[in-house]
Amino acid sequence: MAFYMNVKLIDQGVIASVLKMPRVIELMGDAYAELSAGTVDSPLRTALVNEDGTVLYKPAYSGASGIFCVKVVSVFPGNVEKGLPVTPGIIVVNRAETGMPVAILEAGYLTSLRTGAATGLATELFAKKEAKVAALFGTGGQSRHQLEAMLCARAFETVYVFSRNPENAERFCRENVDIAGGCELVANPDRKVLKRCDVITAATTSPEAVFEWDEIGDDVHVNAIGSLGPKRTEISAETLLNSTVIVDQRAACLKEAGEICLMRDAGLVGDDYNPPEIGELLNAPELQQKPTVFKSVGNAVQDLVCSAEVIKATEAHNIGVTAEL
Amino acid sequence: MAFYMNVKLIDQGVIASVLKMPRVIELMGDAYAELSAGTVDSPLRTALVNEDGTVLYKPAYSGASGIFCVKVVSVFPGNVEKGLPVTPGIIVVNRAETGMPVAILEAGYLTSLRTGAATGLATELFAKKEAKVAALFGTGGQSRHQLEAMLCARAFETVYVFSRNPENAERFCRENVDIAGGCELVANPDRKVLKRCDVITAATTSPEAVFEWDEIGDDVHVNAIGSLGPKRTEISAETLLNSTVIVDQRAACLKEAGEICLMRDAGLVGDDYNPPEIGELLNAPELQQKPTVFKSVGNAVQDLVCSAEVIKATEAHNIGVTAEL
Repeated sequence: MAFYMNVKLIDQGVIASVLKMPRVIELMGDAYAELSAGTVDSPLRTALVNEDGTVLYKPAYSGASGIFCVKVVSVFPGNVEKGLPVTPGIIVVNRAETGMPVAILEAGYLTSLRTGAATGLATELFAKKEAKVAALFGTGGQSRHQLEAMLCARAFETVYVFSRNPENAERFCRENVDIAGGCELVANPDRKVLKRCDVITAATTSPEAVFEWDEIGDDVHVNAIGSLGPKRTEISAETLLNSTVIVDQRAACLKEAGEICLMRDAGLVGDDYNPPEIGELLNAPELQQKPTVFKSVGNAVQDLVCSAEVIKATEAHNIGVTAEL
Repeated sequence: MAFYMNVKLIDQGVIASVLKMPRVIELMGDAYAELSAGTVDSPLRTALVNEDGTVLYKPAYSGASGIFCVKVVSVFPGNVEKGLPVTPGIIVVNRAETGMPVAILEAGYLTSLRTGAATGLATELFAKKEAKVAALFGTGGQSRHQLEAMLCARAFETVYVFSRNPENAERFCRENVDIAGGCELVANPDRKVLKRCDVITAATTSPEAVFEWDEIGDDVHVNAIGSLGPKRTEISAETLLNSTVIVDQRAACLKEAGEICLMRDAGLVGDDYNPPEIGELLNAPELQQKPTVFKSVGNAVQDLVCSAEVIKATEAHNIGVTAEL
């Protein structure tokens, strides 16, 4: 029993210093390629539930990443009133060769970053090259990285920011000037601007569509990363039925994405509905008929590739606190 | 993203200082009561496998414990040659009320301790009160706590120690004099002593019975905590068929305990084989017809109750290192 393990503790600050958005967008390419190729092992998550909330355990492994990881993330809505995060989480990393636990990472920042990067990758792949105008729905915890990722993917001149609460949109624009660079952030514009948007990203908790089909242009690319669960959708069925839909993982989206589940429940698509995965289109020519809609429910492989990159960087540069256990 | 979490890091030394065997034996009573009453949520473990080993994720929750926990434990046989533990592990604890991650515990010491305590509880419940002579098979990582637990349960005068490798038995006896107190530890005795043993504990990796039915007495209590998996058994079918068998969890033992699976595969017991659980016999009078055999495959609820006790103690006395994540 005398053996002690050295476990590296990696906080948000360390992750922010070693994982930059352009690189994370590249990593999402690796992640989705592995996911679609079936070379990653990411079994069904386990959920433990009590009257206050849920703790989710999401494990994943791939040989290419060189690590095992599990994200332990809680969903406790009542934490808002306690001044605590609603979805606190950590990631535990074990080394592939020895199974030794090597690191504990704060998960919230990394999750937001990789979810943004998924939007970044989809925008790179599916938005038109000369895209100049974008819209962002939602100004919650995920939205800063959604904006940053869009700005990495295309040289936007204007991003319109929509929120149910106009003050939130104004605050968001003020607080994100630092990453906007030469791009103008405009809070609460007239909805008519949606027709001119080349890209629209939805990152809300809305139960129903945040824009209608007749509000948008016919060569737009849409990213939809919010509205978790099979009963909520950010995007209208009409928009989806008139677009090329691309998903992060077919099996997961057919089960968990309200965008798709609600269409199926309404009989608008059949049980054989079969949208392509982004990992299948990484090297495809620009073949998607516009509009395009990328729907992501998130996958443990995104955490896996990011965690592997963080571990590599912290080991190479000897960053992070090492604890003996 | 500015919120930081405080996570307590709890190493073997801290666990050893706050969790003493007599108390852990009591805790096993709570654990098995919850397990048999069905008030603990311990879903199927998830296993991720590569060519070198397996990482197991074992989550558990109960309202009474006040925590969620998951044990992340690896099994990498090749670690021996690398000077690393073969089954390194940690436990991640989240608070029941908020889901916040609150602690990371080293898992190896705690696992050994609680596995010992299971033997201690079974010995308290099923061994005859005046037991004086015991035998211990196996001198690996689990055996010190197996010995300690037996000594907590009964006032043994002699414990005979058996190992495939006689030198290991001698070393074990030398190294455990400190916990033996007035009890004599005897390495590699003549096997005839088995007839006089009141308690026999098997904690080996043996694929087959480590003693035969005709070698033991007819009022012995046997603990069997080793030989993991449905294809390995430490105890012969003849011994089991002539004894009252008690298990830690029926469903798990019918699936994972070689002692039972091999008997069923051989047609010696039917699919309706239905041994009682220790949690059902906590308050029973001394009704078990001897010999008795307690078979344990281990359950996450044992880790849960121990982790809860450690968290309580470290918070009450402000022990352990707190890291910000």
